[in-house]
Amino acid sequence: MEFEESGIGEECGVFGCVAAGEWPTQLEVAQVLTLGLVALQHRGQESAGIVTSNGAPSPTYTTLKGMGLVSTAFSPEALLKLRYGNLGICHTRYSTTGISELQNCQPFVVDTLHGKIAVAHNGELVNAHALRKKVMRHGVGLSTCSDSELITQLLALNPPMEEQDAPDWVARIKNLMTETPTSYSLLVMFKDVIYAVRDPYGNRPLCIGRLVPISKLHSPGAGEQDTEGWVVSSESCSFQSIGAKYYREVLPGEIVQISKHGIKSLSVVPRPEGDLPAFCIFEYVYFARPDSIFEGQMVYTVRQRCGRQLAIEAPTDADVVSTVPESATPAALGYAHQSGLPYIEVLCKNRYVGRTFIQPKFGALTDNFAGKRVVLIDDSIVRGNTISPIIKLLKEAGALEVHIRVASPPLRFPCYMGINIPTKEELIANKPEFQDIAGYIGADSVQYLTVEGLVSAVQQGIASHQEDKMISPTNKSSKRVGHCTACLTGKYPVELEW
Amino acid sequence: MEFEESGIGEECGVFGCVAAGEWPTQLEVAQVLTLGLVALQHRGQESAGIVTSNGAPSPTYTTLKGMGLVSTAFSPEALLKLRYGNLGICHTRYSTTGISELQNCQPFVVDTLHGKIAVAHNGELVNAHALRKKVMRHGVGLSTCSDSELITQLLALNPPMEEQDAPDWVARIKNLMTETPTSYSLLVMFKDVIYAVRDPYGNRPLCIGRLVPISKLHSPGAGEQDTEGWVVSSESCSFQSIGAKYYREVLPGEIVQISKHGIKSLSVVPRPEGDLPAFCIFEYVYFARPDSIFEGQMVYTVRQRCGRQLAIEAPTDADVVSTVPESATPAALGYAHQSGLPYIEVLCKNRYVGRTFIQPKFGALTDNFAGKRVVLIDDSIVRGNTISPIIKLLKEAGALEVHIRVASPPLRFPCYMGINIPTKEELIANKPEFQDIAGYIGADSVQYLTVEGLVSAVQQGIASHQEDKMISPTNKSSKRVGHCTACLTGKYPVELEW
Amino acid sequence: MEFEESGIGEECGVFGCVAAGEWPTQLEVAQVLTLGLVALQHRGQESAGIVTSNGAPSPTYTTLKGMGLVSTAFSPEALLKLRYGNLGICHTRYSTTGISELQNCQPFVVDTLHGKIAVAHNGELVNAHALRKKVMRHGVGLSTCSDSELITQLLALNPPMEEQDAPDWVARIKNLMTETPTSYSLLVMFKDVIYAVRDPYGNRPLCIGRLVPISKLHSPGAGEQDTEGWVVSSESCSFQSIGAKYYREVLPGEIVQISKHGIKSLSVVPRPEGDLPAFCIFEYVYFARPDSIFEGQMVYTVRQRCGRQLAIEAPTDADVVSTVPESATPAALGYAHQSGLPYIEVLCKNRYVGRTFIQPKFGALTDNFAGKRVVLIDDSIVRGNTISPIIKLLKEAGALEVHIRVASPPLRFPCYMGINIPTKEELIANKPEFQDIAGYIGADSVQYLTVEGLVSAVQQGIASHQEDKMISPTNKSSKRVGHCTACLTGKYPVELEW
Amino acid sequence: MEFEESGIGEECGVFGCVAAGEWPTQLEVAQVLTLGLVALQHRGQESAGIVTSNGAPSPTYTTLKGMGLVSTAFSPEALLKLRYGNLGICHTRYSTTGISELQNCQPFVVDTLHGKIAVAHNGELVNAHALRKKVMRHGVGLSTCSDSELITQLLALNPPMEEQDAPDWVARIKNLMTETPTSYSLLVMFKDVIYAVRDPYGNRPLCIGRLVPISKLHSPGAGEQDTEGWVVSSESCSFQSIGAKYYREVLPGEIVQISKHGIKSLSVVPRPEGDLPAFCIFEYVYFARPDSIFEGQMVYTVRQRCGRQLAIEAPTDADVVSTVPESATPAALGYAHQSGLPYIEVLCKNRYVGRTFIQPKFGALTDNFAGKRVVLIDDSIVRGNTISPIIKLLKEAGALEVHIRVASPPLRFPCYMGINIPTKEELIANKPEFQDIAGYIGADSVQYLTVEGLVSAVQQGIASHQEDKMISPTNKSSKRVGHCTACLTGKYPVELEW
Repeated sequence: MEFEESGIGEECGVFGCVAAGEWPTQLEVAQVLTLGLVALQHRGQESAGIVTSNGAPSPTYTTLKGMGLVSTAFSPEALLKLRYGNLGICHTRYSTTGISELQNCQPFVVDTLHGKIAVAHNGELVNAHALRKKVMRHGVGLSTCSDSELITQLLALNPPMEEQDAPDWVARIKNLMTETPTSYSLLVMFKDVIYAVRDPYGNRPLCIGRLVPISKLHSPGAGEQDTEGWVVSSESCSFQSIGAKYYREVLPGEIVQISKHGIKSLSVVPRPEGDLPAFCIFEYVYFARPDSIFEGQMVYTVRQRCGRQLAIEAPTDADVVSTVPESATPAALGYAHQSGLPYIEVLCKNRYVGRTFIQPKFGALTDNFAGKRVVLIDDSIVRGNTISPIIKLLKEAGALEVHIRVASPPLRFPCYMGINIPTKEELIANKPEFQDIAGYIGADSVQYLTVEGLVSAVQQGIASHQEDKMISPTNKSSKRVGHCTACLTGKYPVELEW
Repeated sequence: MEFEESGIGEECGVFGCVAAGEWPTQLEVAQVLTLGLVALQHRGQESAGIVTSNGAPSPTYTTLKGMGLVSTAFSPEALLKLRYGNLGICHTRYSTTGISELQNCQPFVVDTLHGKIAVAHNGELVNAHALRKKVMRHGVGLSTCSDSELITQLLALNPPMEEQDAPDWVARIKNLMTETPTSYSLLVMFKDVIYAVRDPYGNRPLCIGRLVPISKLHSPGAGEQDTEGWVVSSESCSFQSIGAKYYREVLPGEIVQISKHGIKSLSVVPRPEGDLPAFCIFEYVYFARPDSIFEGQMVYTVRQRCGRQLAIEAPTDADVVSTVPESATPAALGYAHQSGLPYIEVLCKNRYVGRTFIQPKFGALTDNFAGKRVVLIDDSIVRGNTISPIIKLLKEAGALEVHIRVASPPLRFPCYMGINIPTKEELIANKPEFQDIAGYIGADSVQYLTVEGLVSAVQQGIASHQEDKMISPTNKSSKRVGHCTACLTGKYPVELEW
Repeated sequence: MEFEESGIGEECGVFGCVAAGEWPTQLEVAQVLTLGLVALQHRGQESAGIVTSNGAPSPTYTTLKGMGLVSTAFSPEALLKLRYGNLGICHTRYSTTGISELQNCQPFVVDTLHGKIAVAHNGELVNAHALRKKVMRHGVGLSTCSDSELITQLLALNPPMEEQDAPDWVARIKNLMTETPTSYSLLVMFKDVIYAVRDPYGNRPLCIGRLVPISKLHSPGAGEQDTEGWVVSSESCSFQSIGAKYYREVLPGEIVQISKHGIKSLSVVPRPEGDLPAFCIFEYVYFARPDSIFEGQMVYTVRQRCGRQLAIEAPTDADVVSTVPESATPAALGYAHQSGLPYIEVLCKNRYVGRTFIQPKFGALTDNFAGKRVVLIDDSIVRGNTISPIIKLLKEAGALEVHIRVASPPLRFPCYMGINIPTKEELIANKPEFQDIAGYIGADSVQYLTVEGLVSAVQQGIASHQEDKMISPTNKSSKRVGHCTACLTGKYPVELEW
Repeated sequence: MEFEESGIGEECGVFGCVAAGEWPTQLEVAQVLTLGLVALQHRGQESAGIVTSNGAPSPTYTTLKGMGLVSTAFSPEALLKLRYGNLGICHTRYSTTGISELQNCQPFVVDTLHGKIAVAHNGELVNAHALRKKVMRHGVGLSTCSDSELITQLLALNPPMEEQDAPDWVARIKNLMTETPTSYSLLVMFKDVIYAVRDPYGNRPLCIGRLVPISKLHSPGAGEQDTEGWVVSSESCSFQSIGAKYYREVLPGEIVQISKHGIKSLSVVPRPEGDLPAFCIFEYVYFARPDSIFEGQMVYTVRQRCGRQLAIEAPTDADVVSTVPESATPAALGYAHQSGLPYIEVLCKNRYVGRTFIQPKFGALTDNFAGKRVVLIDDSIVRGNTISPIIKLLKEAGALEVHIRVASPPLRFPCYMGINIPTKEELIANKPEFQDIAGYIGADSVQYLTVEGLVSAVQQGIASHQEDKMISPTNKSSKRVGHCTACLTGKYPVELEW
């Protein structure tokens, strides 16, 4: 629960959709895009952008961008402008740099000699600084500090363009991938095609879904011939809201072409020999919506397993187990089941916390725990200033003891691959008071899940599910399991250049 | 959970505060009022109003009113104007009539020969129509259709005023109470006093809290001499956020005077011989926040008991018990404990449901229940159009069976005492399809809690708690237990005039 | 020009319209009302209100109120609600008291035993304080400090109402007029009738126009049978924008009934023996739009005559005459014609003066006056702080001399009849520096028009026009000429009670 | 007056300021910039942008952009961010293309290998299309369709950049000027310098002013040592509002460097042999504020001379001369003086024309002209649909005859140098009804100023003033007189490429 308050944030969510068949299709692409984007809203609330193309040989692109939530960024009148799109990509952005300007809002669209391309990006290029220099040395002025603009200019630059040439965007994307190893999940739209790209380490998620007519959504015999269109998204939770079926993940290093004719895997750019995949383990711990599926398993299930593992690693002599609602609830239920202690609610959320007033976020359900020893499960303690008043509230309301069990290891290191983590100095795990964290926050005891426990809780689900559910047509090696735990361990998947 | 979507609504929440001691006191009354009001926001989101008085012999009243939530209705600049108040009352309003104008916003303030009075009202006068005629026959023009204006004009009218007379507001309030039996919880502010009034049937809630210095909030020896001020509120949940201690309920028929000198019970107007109190049972079932206390018991506990009772009345042959989050969760946990079935989560809430887009409110946590028989607890089924898509979602995601158990009886009758209930025709319990409600909503079975079960779940807690916790200094008879169940049974506490 | 900046303000503008013939008529009453109200916007920019009635036996009233200009106060969606009106009244308000709340916004509508009445008022009741006491002694609470609410409650109170009685609003209006002599121009709407009322002194303006089909607007043979409806307005300038023909003024003391059947003079309540009419002379000097007609003469013409009179009273040895645009231009042209000096422009207005920035309102047209002696005509000097920087600007740009000639006498006394004038202490004419006003503001000389000169400039036009243009069917005595000059002379038309 | 309604528009206004001396200086650069920009608001109301630099060796740039008027585009909070600037440039934009997006808002800022440059541009590159191709062929993606982005990328491209090189922006600007002959007045900011650039034809205006301490503003002995800073602006009217003294124009083809050390003319790029300067004659006729100075003469004076010339070319047998306020007033006064006919006002402007309502913009001052023959001077007739209802209004109010005299020649050709003119088809001068324009608009006669008359009215003022007032240190040939009259004659100063 502390994550919510901590300023930790994912860079972005990306979403795309291509209608099957010739334009004008029946599919309301603009509606699919906005619904899909709303379902990714938890990945970024600062700004939102949508670009659609009507898919014609000389296509018209329509761009909408706005600050804030999707629902406020776009007026119904503005959305009408997107009506004639046959395909489109969209993006929702988290403010990482504090520069919250409309001009940093994605997708980024530029005109090139071969026509307009639009790019939506989730992640952070580890060698962005060197790449910016390279582009500028070529005489290109960069108007924003966003990686997305940098990517579009890199795509335009290399190789040099001639009007008479056919535009080979796949070659340009491969060039790009050789210049920067991670971290990116990209959607590149050109005329009537979307290229869905995941970096060779698979650091950020990206998956594909199939739009099926409502009438056939649950018919087992519905084949690909019934496809109304294809969607691609940072998370599969966005598929439910648009009636799409989960199809598969884009593999680490893969370039998938999505067009009105269907999907096609064009290439899988390999990692350096010996490197494991490095999917961000924090997607499981915190960022993703619990109903999303990564690597063949539901995020909620992983969180519940973390709770079970925590009960094994850090058992407690107490009367009841409870949660800091809502994000820690699966772990709390897992802890309760594993430990055999009864699960109760101790806090009720106040839905109307005002922006203007400092209003407590929770009310205490006093009669549920007065006179009892409580194990309170939280998903994280980042700065320590959120859990402290909750413990005070519970004790004042009559809790005999409050034991904090945290369903993830302490954050200790910065992330250079797209996650906004407080500075090393701000992280409680790096402060002297961490030595007596329980005393510092007023708890009777505090224990964290170990890194090994977390990795095990994540990976044991992959072992059992991977084989039958995940489709990986071309590159067997990419299935090997590995996760980025840099923020917990300081071990980064690639060497960092600065 | 259906209540939220059903348009069922409480009329209002009222809140008041008086600083102890002489003006200017240390207490930031305006801040206490706004925090208290935010905590009652669930009782009305249409508009909000605050009136403060500086408590001087010729006091200055300051009034703020605005549409929408408290946090948007008042700008920080506007709140500064209230700064010099020594006491004040405030109000948050639910839109019942569709006439959502600022002029209907309470508190209502009028100037009289004896000075200004301000009135905040929760409830609905059963004989409002006849009273309006009476007032207008006297030559008074009424500028709104609100009961609150009617109450202020009735207070001003009877008896006739002379400038030289001392203003006897208590006599005027008693006159008012003889003219209208129910339903009202009132705050009447005049100069430096607030009168807290509850109708003889106690139909709407009203309780008193004591502001204690933070340093002494939990010291057992803190006596009344440490009081910084008094607060009065529709619900005790508002006390937590301002550091107030629950003191007691205002009794049915009681007039309590609250001033800088403390609180004083002035009178208890009796009910007709033989009539029981008629506290609205729906406050327990739906309106109140779960951490509020009525009649000596926490609302959450009552809801949990409803779930237990439901498990006894309507047992199910199933694998798991779950909830439609969040309002049905206490009942679901009660049902699970009583039945011995495991409690799991099947739905995750989407926090970013847009106003512009029809976005599903829930995602399915598929892996938790696929292949299982689910008992799904809801707090109500009013129109039947909310639960139906949830059942569909669960079944599509793989639930073998979905059995709906509703932790309250079916609504069948209109309320004339302040609750906005859909017309009789709209209530599903009055429709032909109610005969096969399970088929209609797509469930495998549906069962409701009985009225007797609900009354028992409510009243068994009063029996055990009442004696030691509730203070009722003057009127023993008012303690006798009784509740208004008119919307369930059609039995109204008073005869209705129209 | 200084008036604009001085905070001097009229209380209000009122406007009404009744469609001829049975409902639903062709006339778009809501559009006529809003266009008419926009044309009165110079009389009040604080808030605006419109009430329409569909004119049925049990009519529906629709009310819109909003803060700010008419164009921003009402959204197009809101205006649609007024669509079905057959008649209506509206009001635009100037903020005199600083209490700029929506609840003080007129028209005021109240429900009485005989139905709803709506009142729009321009003016200020000289005995408002005593009347408020009287109403409150009767037991009526007053919810605002506006005279308009007071007038509605007085109309409702006297005589007492019985449901079976026919409502005699004319008798009630006459009762009201006996209780308060001035100052008011009133529109009272009840069901399908508007009563247009002017106080016996005729202190505020009110005139009637006739809506004629566009096709017959300029046909000399168009008779009353071609009337589409009637309008009533504070100023005739509002008739041009709606295609209405000026019909006549409402006379001092007159009650005119306007209905779908036409207009009818019901009564003329007389002044005390010997009292002259007291039409506010400042309507000519400042408030009214120059194209409005009062007492048979165009306001622009009166202002031009003031300029001529000023040239006679205060001739100047100079090279050119100019104006502080735009309000002083007619007087400047009059002065130039009378004096024989050439008229030039010395200032150009900056249309984009920002609210955020202190931006000079004028640019100097240097080449027009460099090296010349300038007579600069202004319409007033109230506080002296507006003209001073203009004189500085002209001198810095090269004017040899700047002589200020003011086309009205100095303001010296407060107004109790509806005009908001700075306190006596703030008026420059009452300050020591007035002794050397030229030195104080940096001019080479300053001279004001005399009171006698102003009265003569106003009244000489009435003498010549009145007989043939003004229709006054019933009361010959009301034609006698007289004007209120209280703010200039301290001679008030009635004794003031406080 | 028709221009206002016609959609004719200038592209932009540009303004810059550099504080003299070392940072932090006393000068509030941000305030000078905003006040200067407000004074150019008539040149563009669509959007506004400001960029400041703190002038340090590694400077921080702060950028603000917003839609609408300067006063609404920037909140006071936002302006605070600019506080620490030592120099800055700003821009106000007119919507020419209908694409009114924030991303087209100037100044355009890009990061290059040598640091950030900011560009503000007034004008339109005649060969923009070819230049875009060229840039894109180099592999640069263009994110907007604005010339300003194109100019920044051209500056960055040529010659190729190396980090070790010193950045020679002047050489880059000269390169740019060889690639595009017109039309541009540019401000280029880099670190602590602003380069002010005018194209070789001098098509758009640009002039320099000197900020002098208020105390010395009018002291004849104030020398350059008293300079607080330098400003550069599209028009000198912006100098009055900030207390700056007019210094001189930037010459056609000149590059002026403005820094904390003062101003320095770096170069004057010549025109092709034989080409005259081509300052846009429409700046005199319509765009500029009347108090601005071009080529040594006040714009108001030129307009007055146009009126005199018109009276010579098109005399009228009439009784009075009047104006369509406000833009035609100088010409009307000139016509009146030349013709000897009296000048009167016939129209009063309604200040409160609502956006929501179609409200007449003028009221008729009937008594001034009823029964008379009126010569009405307008500054233009573009489409003919604005003057027509005015003539109707005057005739209905009693004018015997209405003769229209237009103080500029008819518009017949499109502009490719920055002015948005209706399509050739929409211009009334190209329509059949122009043959009987008087009949078409309902006038008794219509006559236009001739092109020769206009050119003579403009150029006779230059002859007499130029020598002593205009400073042109380096390039004698650039003083030769010439103006662009392409929109009137179809003779463009350069050959157009498409």
